[in-house]
Formats: sequence, structure tokens, C-alpha cells
Amino acid sequence: MTDLGAGSSFGARLDAALTARGSLCVGIDPHPGLLTAWGLPVDVSGLERFALTVVSALAGEVAALKPQSAFFERFGSAGIAVLERTVAAGRELGALVVLDVKRGDIGSTMDAYAAAYLGPAAAVAADAITVSPYLGVGALNPAFAAASAGGQGVFVLARTSNPEGVPLQQARLADGRAVAQAVVDEVGARNAGAAPLGSFGVVVGATIGASGLDLAGLNGPFLVPGVGAQGGTADDVRRIFGGARRAVLPATSREVLGRGPDVTALRGAARRKVEEFAFLRA
Amino acid sequence: MTDLGAGSSFGARLDAALTARGSLCVGIDPHPGLLTAWGLPVDVSGLERFALTVVSALAGEVAALKPQSAFFERFGSAGIAVLERTVAAGRELGALVVLDVKRGDIGSTMDAYAAAYLGPAAAVAADAITVSPYLGVGALNPAFAAASAGGQGVFVLARTSNPEGVPLQQARLADGRAVAQAVVDEVGARNAGAAPLGSFGVVVGATIGASGLDLAGLNGPFLVPGVGAQGGTADDVRRIFGGARRAVLPATSREVLGRGPDVTALRGAARRKVEEFAFLRA
Repeated sequence: MTDLGAGSSFGARLDAALTARGSLCVGIDPHPGLLTAWGLPVDVSGLERFALTVVSALAGEVAALKPQSAFFERFGSAGIAVLERTVAAGRELGALVVLDVKRGDIGSTMDAYAAAYLGPAAAVAADAITVSPYLGVGALNPAFAAASAGGQGVFVLARTSNPEGVPLQQARLADGRAVAQAVVDEVGARNAGAAPLGSFGVVVGATIGASGLDLAGLNGPFLVPGVGAQGGTADDVRRIFGGARRAVLPATSREVLGRGPDVTALRGAARRKVEEFAFLRA
Repeated sequence: MTDLGAGSSFGARLDAALTARGSLCVGIDPHPGLLTAWGLPVDVSGLERFALTVVSALAGEVAALKPQSAFFERFGSAGIAVLERTVAAGRELGALVVLDVKRGDIGSTMDAYAAAYLGPAAAVAADAITVSPYLGVGALNPAFAAASAGGQGVFVLARTSNPEGVPLQQARLADGRAVAQAVVDEVGARNAGAAPLGSFGVVVGATIGASGLDLAGLNGPFLVPGVGAQGGTADDVRRIFGGARRAVLPATSREVLGRGPDVTALRGAARRKVEEFAFLRA
């Protein structure tokens, strides 16, 4: 088990993990088609077999795992019980676990979301979570505060790959900046002075094209879904992130998971993706 | 038990409920301060006592109940099990249950969120859910489709009361519209031709001031949090919603819940709020 620096900030732990294991996050997305392809029933027992197989195959290998909450919520409280075990097992076996929940609210409700996933006493304690900024990055402050207290991280949606998101994410604020740019700037302000890397990141899709986003000031990690089967390539990542590439965490799912349930095949697919992105830390 | 028209669309059922019971949604927000004020422990047993007391006091009285998922997620899978019981009991006792989850994602992940909460086979089947449009209203189509199939509704965040949300929600799209206006317009397009009321609504805060939003074309319900202890008044609601007032669902929480755990006091507080908003259906 690689020592990922437990006890220090998420930014420091992620930086160490990227150096030790290479730049890859594998999404745990147990959608019905994948369960069926693995010969598993589309129920909570299939969900558990799938998620724990991915964890046992990959949590000792890759920098990060990213369970997608929706696929667990789909099975209600029994699915969340599997999510709890998945997150705990992933961390125990040495991966950073980024829980993809995309929560976002205000006031005491945001406090409750933070308490659910962040801080030392969280119900489902991940290394980091994703959040959504429609109510403003400032409304997410309880998540940033709880994450800091627990040595955890937060990734804020900024610019996604799906075409339906473009009009909103490129809308202009009163000061002329695009919405996505303002998200990057507000998150970056919360990373000021952090070394080697801030703990607050943004989500930027791998296939966003020429977005005009200035990513240089983030001083935090970029979570980049959509590489592999969803169309994003290593060249896309190189082009989009340029000088900030050392803090990039490409996330893939189907291209690796589709090789399961064979553990050796899963590991082989993950290692090939790690190789593909080796340039990020070169 | 009032017949709220089970079997028909959410819009029709909500319209009937507003007529039969008056215009009020009571939020079920079991935050730690409220549990303590009720003499309950801040744990999953206190959560369950609180939520089921609110349901038994009010589900036969008010048009809608709105459990806030964050306060249940805070207790992990055990909290979600309480949420399942709360939603089921609320519907069984005759209230429409709007589950406040503010989910939002894309593709197969959005399909999974829809399967979790909407459609006939949902794990936690509510009458309606709230969703967040940072990834675009179009990305939420799986929720609209599942809701239609199940006679359920969807409320999309449009313009919230918190100051941190203003810059993004008032940002301008390429066509000059504000982000919040585009959300209202896109949801309204999905309600075209529905009678007496579409099943797809928007969330608009009660204290938004002069927002410049044109709400006349929605043909669907407005969920209006923030009335009562959070500062919104009946006059605010009258001013903001004008001619669309018949489809307004004001949501209050602390002002009613703070009167518990006494069931008679809870009912009395809810009835006073219903009276305050009687003008909406006059």
C-alpha cells in the first residue's frame, strides 16, 4: 500500500498520489448495462459485487476512484449502504476516493451536505466530493470549511462537455467574465498560497474545445471526466491544460470497467490509461 | 383523506390539492438545532421521530410536504431508510411529497437519478423532486421523462434568494436573456398545452426583489421557499407572482416546525400560514 500522506491536506495527498501512481481516476459507474455485461443481476447484490470488485482490483493501483452516487441512490438506502462500504474499502486499500455527488444548496442545508460527506465525523467520509455552483460558489462555503477541517477536497463543476451546458456556463456575468471562468476564479481564490497544491478543484470536461477559459490561476486540481470511451483523448487533455497539467486528474470509466469482471484485465486496462497520461507528470 | 387525484399528472394533482387544502408546502428540515429544540437526540432515532411526527401531524392537512434530503443523507444509509419511510408515509396520508434533492447530471447518470426518485419503480418514489440546471435544462430530460411516466413533477432551480446566487443566475446568455429567465422559458416549453397546470415547475425565492423575471409563460407550478422565518412575506409573494399566483406553492419550514413537537401546535401554525396565503386561490 502506497503511503498517500494521510493527515495532510487533500491537495498534498493528491499531489503525492499522482507522483506515486500516475494521473488517473477510475469512475465507479455501475449502470445497468455494465452490470449485465459483467453477468451480474441489476439489483443491490449486483451493485455490491460490481463496486467491491472494482475497488479490490484498482484501489491499490490508481491514484483515485470516483464512485458515482446516482447509481447507488438508485437502490435507495440499501444502495447507500453499499456506497458506504465502497468508499471505506477504497480508502482502506490506498486510493483517494472522490465521491461524485454534485450537491449544492444554501445555509443549514449546505451544512448538512457537508456533514454527510466531509469532515472527520462524516456519514460517508470521502477524500473529496463534487459540488454544483448554481446557487453560487459562496453558498458552498460550508463544504470548503468542512473539507479543510478533515483534510479533504472539493471539486466544483465549472465547464462540462455536454452541449446542453454551454449556454449557461458561457453566459456573461455583469463584469464580463463567463460563468465557468468566475467559478474557476472563485475556487482559485480559496487556494491562494497553498503548496504544493490547493485542495479545492474544478471539474472541466475533456472535450470542451476552445473554451477561452483561463485555468492558470487555480492552484488546485482539475478533475477531467470524459476521457476514453466518452471521446476525450490525451491530446485533448494536453491542449486544454497546458502549463497546469501536473494537477490534472483525468477520469475514465467505461474504457476500464468494460474489461471486467476479470481483475487482471481491469488492472491492465487501468495501467494502459495511466501510461497514456504519463506526460502530465513528466 | 382528501382525494388528490392519484393517477393523473402531477400538475393536475397539485392544482386539486391547492384548491382542497390551500397553498402551503411545509419543509421537513430536521437540522440539529430543531432536533434539540424538540428534545430529541441528534442521531438517526431523533431524525425518525422528528420526520414521522411532522408527517403524522401535517400530511392530512397541507397540500405538500418537502423533506430536505441533506438532513437525511447526513446519517448515511440509516438516514436514507428514514427518508424512504417519511416519503411513503407522507404520500399515504394524502400529502404531495416534494423531495428536495437538487440533483443534476448528464447522460446515464441523470437516468440513474431519475430512476432513484421518479417513475413507477423508483427506490424513493416522491410526487416531485427538485433539480439543479448547471449542466443545462436539457441535461435534465431523463427526469422530465421519468416524471411524466409516473405522474410526477420536477422543480428546476431558477432564481434563489441567497445573495451568492445572483451573479450566476442573472448572467446573460448569448441571446441576452438572464440565466434564470432561460430556465423558466425552457421549463415552460415542456408544459406547453398542459391543463389545468403543467407538471414541471421552477424554484423562485420569496425574497428576490425586482428580478425582472417574466414568469407568465411557465404554465406550471412555482415552488417558493423562504416564506416565514426566512424573511419572505405574503406581500412578497403577491408582488412577485401577480397573475401566475394560482400555481404558487409557498414553502415554509422553521415557522411551523418550531412549534413542535406538539401536534396540535404544529397543525395550528400550518393553518395560520394557509390562511395567510388564501389570496393565492381567491
